[in-house]
Order: sequence, then structure tokens, then C-alpha cells
Amino acid sequence: MGGKIDSKRQARTVETGRPTIRQVADRASVGTSTVSRVLNDSPDVSPAVRARVLDAVAELAYQPDLLASSLRKGSTRTVGFVVSDIANPLFADIARVAEETFQRAGYGILLWNSHGDSERDEAGIAVLASRRVDGFILSLSDEARAETLSALSSLSAALVLLDRDLPGVTASAVLSDHERGMKAGIDHLVELGHERIALITGPLNLRPSRLRVEAFRKALDAHDLTVPDDLIGMGSFTAGFGEHCAHRLFGLEDPPTALIVGGNRLLEGALRGLQNRGIKIGRDLALICCDDLALAQLYSPPITVIARDIAQMGRRAAEILLEMLGGNTRPIVETLPTELVVRESTFSL
Amino acid sequence: MGGKIDSKRQARTVETGRPTIRQVADRASVGTSTVSRVLNDSPDVSPAVRARVLDAVAELAYQPDLLASSLRKGSTRTVGFVVSDIANPLFADIARVAEETFQRAGYGILLWNSHGDSERDEAGIAVLASRRVDGFILSLSDEARAETLSALSSLSAALVLLDRDLPGVTASAVLSDHERGMKAGIDHLVELGHERIALITGPLNLRPSRLRVEAFRKALDAHDLTVPDDLIGMGSFTAGFGEHCAHRLFGLEDPPTALIVGGNRLLEGALRGLQNRGIKIGRDLALICCDDLALAQLYSPPITVIARDIAQMGRRAAEILLEMLGGNTRPIVETLPTELVVRESTFSL
Repeated sequence: MGGKIDSKRQARTVETGRPTIRQVADRASVGTSTVSRVLNDSPDVSPAVRARVLDAVAELAYQPDLLASSLRKGSTRTVGFVVSDIANPLFADIARVAEETFQRAGYGILLWNSHGDSERDEAGIAVLASRRVDGFILSLSDEARAETLSALSSLSAALVLLDRDLPGVTASAVLSDHERGMKAGIDHLVELGHERIALITGPLNLRPSRLRVEAFRKALDAHDLTVPDDLIGMGSFTAGFGEHCAHRLFGLEDPPTALIVGGNRLLEGALRGLQNRGIKIGRDLALICCDDLALAQLYSPPITVIARDIAQMGRRAAEILLEMLGGNTRPIVETLPTELVVRESTFSL
Repeated sequence: MGGKIDSKRQARTVETGRPTIRQVADRASVGTSTVSRVLNDSPDVSPAVRARVLDAVAELAYQPDLLASSLRKGSTRTVGFVVSDIANPLFADIARVAEETFQRAGYGILLWNSHGDSERDEAGIAVLASRRVDGFILSLSDEARAETLSALSSLSAALVLLDRDLPGVTASAVLSDHERGMKAGIDHLVELGHERIALITGPLNLRPSRLRVEAFRKALDAHDLTVPDDLIGMGSFTAGFGEHCAHRLFGLEDPPTALIVGGNRLLEGALRGLQNRGIKIGRDLALICCDDLALAQLYSPPITVIARDIAQMGRRAAEILLEMLGGNTRPIVETLPTELVVRESTFSL
């Protein structure tokens, strides 16, 4: 260990009144290396000594200096969490459960919002890497951007992608089976007699929206229904885009009788747009949205959803990253199911 | 600096293929200390040398090692963010704006969820302190708990409280003027002819609910209305508690004609409870909630709210903490306004 740094630490802890490892050792009548061994859960300490050290730790309210310790061990026990927007309830729910899982394992989460801007994804990756995070959970803003892929390829940290599919990159990921849910949604609407079905979702360079559009076309095809391009609004996950598309769809000469909205912020905007147009959901329009959040459940009428287990996404992303940090080098890719939950917003035509 | 640590760093960066400061110095034909001076924006470097170094940094895609650098400088440029639940839209919105503000200043946010458990507040404070965060933004779960107060008093880090008031602790804080909003809400309901007005909010050991209850009683008193205790439900901010209280209120022989819900999770639960009881908002019950979130705006009918500028809370909390980290030692306490936004959920009796 660098002696200079240790003496600096000692100085700092004395200044701030924090107890030192030396004081713990003295109180337990052992050496400082024994205190270290106990705090690192080494097996080569007798139960009696261990108890004495832990008593001293408790009595002095000693806090080991995790930062200096991680610098020595080469691990910061910190994970970077890069998402477009932590206030999107999808990411907030994922963050809550992931943080819970990391907290129990002694890891911390460093948060970074990209605001859907891929240059800020890259900035986040660089900044968090220079903070030496051990791993990343990433929900990138553009799967196809060369600069992002190159920023990722230079990383030595472990990473888990959230519902993203990067060309040429073999990475661990937690994915959603958007196809199954979309197929169930279309089957349900067609069974109710709907043929003019619209879709609003995000851009084609992101897996969730790309797969939703593909599955939407495929499912309509399977029912021998044509897919008029003017009923598909894709391009952005923002509320503003959702409102714009809802407005546009109900300005058409022959508006849709059913709408699927794939995106939580999009849903907020779409509901606003529909309210402005005076469209009554469950009467004028059958509505399905993706993700079973409070808004969908409590809306009047309650909204039929293509649901997925969001807590499970957060938990598995964290568990997979922890497994990789534990030494597993094989990428783990898990696809979690989606399922249709029928409520009153979808009705028989 | 401890030579051992530096050589370790060098070994690590060579292993992972990351360019070293030595390579940057060689390419720019300067010493490593000149590279450091340029990267730390020291004034004593000529423009020509500065340009040469920055070119070399760019060509090699060099990333300074922030962790080792912060250990030397005694600052980690990291802030701990302790909240009960990041998936509560209030905290998610605050986190988004605070993170944005810190990001621009070169600071990172370490997230910790306490799940409303004050022991987990204390654990979070201890863990984040041992990670040497420079400061904290705290939304504590219990203002009166001795262990929490003692954990805070041993901190050397700067801290900003989110709408909390700790007995005997002088700390910076961003507060909400709950009294003004509550008074406006009651005045509005009384003007509409309501006299049986109920309140559901959190526990008395947290500032938002304590002030809401006080202001509620005071505002009713000002109208010479009695405040029956069975119309006040206080105790927890959870959705489960909101549902329970809504159920109970509408099982009373003489149920309220108006209800104020002070808490976002509480609102979700209360709406569920009201739906189960078959109570139609805007017809059977006038409803006011606190915080102008998507659910309140998009609910049918749209819900009258006691609003506050949540983005402003997050921004000011971050700015105040940055000011303290910049050397200001005087505590800064700001109270941000609340205001009533009237919508269709409140009607004339």
C-alpha cells in the first residue's frame, strides 16, 4: 500500500473526527490487518477475535473507507445506469428494483440521463468509465450509431443492455418479447371487429419500436388486413410526438377505430391529443397501450395493456450484471414475456 | 503520491488498452505534469502547448482517471441521493432535474432507495459516506428519529434536505409552502358549498404531511367548520394506505363530499379505493390532490391540484448543494410556492 496515502487518510479521519482502523484495532487488542481481514470476511479469523473486532467496530461506529479500499482492489462496487429519462415510469420502476438488488450486494448505482440524445449516451459512458464503474446497465438512444458502438467497444467494464440489440456487439441483455404481446393485441382487436388499427411508437433505430412495428405488420398480415402507412406513426418516444400523432390520426378522413400506443411518454401525449379532439376512449376508439403502469390501470375507462414484468426486468438486469462481475464471462441474454391484459378501453365494434 | 498505486494504475491501463498520461505526454513532447496542468485548466501553460496537449488527448482518446484524481484532491465529485422510492413520480422528476444540474457541473449522482424505512436511511447515509460522496440530497423517512439525527451529525459532507425539517439540525433545505396551497384548496371547496371535507396524507413525523394536517385544520377553523377526526387519515404515504382510507371514508354513515389527497402514491391507492366503492369523482365526490403529475392531468375528469414546481425543487436542491461544495458554509433554506390549479374534479354542491 502507498504509505503516503494511508497517512493522508489518517490525517483526514482525525480531522473529521471519524474513528480510524487503528483505534478499532487497539480497542479489540488486535493488529490493523486483523481488522481488515474481519471486514473483508476472510475465513482465517477465529470466531472469538471476529466477535471482538465487530464489537469494537460497532462501539466506535467505525466506517471503512470504501473509496480507498476500492482503489486498492481495482473495484469501485459501483454500477453506471444510463437511461434516456429516469422520470419515465418504466425506467424509474427498473431503477428502483435494480438499485434494491445492487444495494443488497454492496453495490451503488450512479445515475446518468441522456435525454434521448446519443451524444449524451457517449458522454455518460466516458464519464462513468473514468469514474471506474465496474459495470453498466444501458438503455441507449440509438442502436445504430457508430460513435456509440465504438465507445462501448473500448470499455473494459461489464455491461447489460435494457431492451437493446446492437449490430455486431455481443453483450448481455434483458429483452422483451414484443412480438407475442403485439400479436395478442391485434388478435384481440380483430376479434372485436376492428380493421382500421393504428400504431404510435418510437423510432426504428430502437429495438422496442422496431419490433413493435414489425410484429404489428405481421399480425395484421396474418388476418389478411392491409396496413395503410398513414396509420403508423413512428419516430420518437416523447409525449409531444404522441400528441402530434393522435391529432393527425383523428384529422384523417377515415380515422382508425383502434389504436395501439407503444411508449409511456407517448401514451401521456396521445391521451392529451385524444382529449383535445374530443375522442372518447372505449366508445369512439379502442385503445391498447404498452406497460401496465398506474395511468393505464386508473384511467377511466381502464386501459387494455400489453404488459411485461417491469420489476423482473430491473431485477434480472442487476442479477446478470452481478453474475458477470462475479467472474462469468459468457454474455447472458434473457427475453422476458409480454402478455395482454384486457380492460374496458377495448370494445366490440 | 503513493508510487505503488501509480504503478498499479499504469499496469491496469496497459492491460485494458487505455492510453496512459505518459503516452499523451510523449505524443505532445511535454512532461506528464504539463498534461495534468492542461487537464486541470491551470493558467500557467502557453496556448501553443495547451493546443498540442489537447490534440494528443483527442488523438489518443485519453480519459483521465477521475477516481484516482478525486482521491488525491479529496473530492469524489459525487453526490448521494437518498429517497424513499425513486419510482414515486415526485422523486423521479426531482432526480431527473437534479442529475441534469449535477451532470453539467461534472458531478455524478449515487442513488439510494430507503423504501420509507428509517434504518435504511441510516444505512444509506453510512454507505454513501464511506464512498466519500461530497454531499447529500436527502428525503428522510422519519424526521424525529434519534439514530438518523446522530448519523447526520457525524457527517462532514454537505447536505440539502428535500422538504424536511429536523429538530435541532441547521441544514440547507428546499421546502414547499404547503400551507398556502392547502388554504387555497379549502377556500375553493368551501366556496363550492362543501363542508364535509376529508384529508388523506402521510405520517406526522414528516414535514409535508404534518404541515398539510395543520393547514387543513387551520383553514377549516377559519371558515368556522368543525374538523371531525374520523375524516383525517394520516399515517403513511403508501398506495395501500390511500386505498384503505378511501374505503374507510366511504363506509362511514355520513361520508365526506370532498377529499384532499396529499401524496402521489396515496392518490393511486385512493383512486383504486374510490373505484372499488363505485364513487364517481366530479359527481359523488370533489377531489383535490397534491402535485401536478400526468395522472392528475389525464384523469377523467381532470383532477384539481395543489401544484408546486417539481423541476424547480430538483434544480434548486442541486444548485444549493453545488454552492455549498463551492465553499459557501451558510445554510440556505428556500421555500417554494404551491398554488391551486382548478379542474373538473371539484364541483359545486
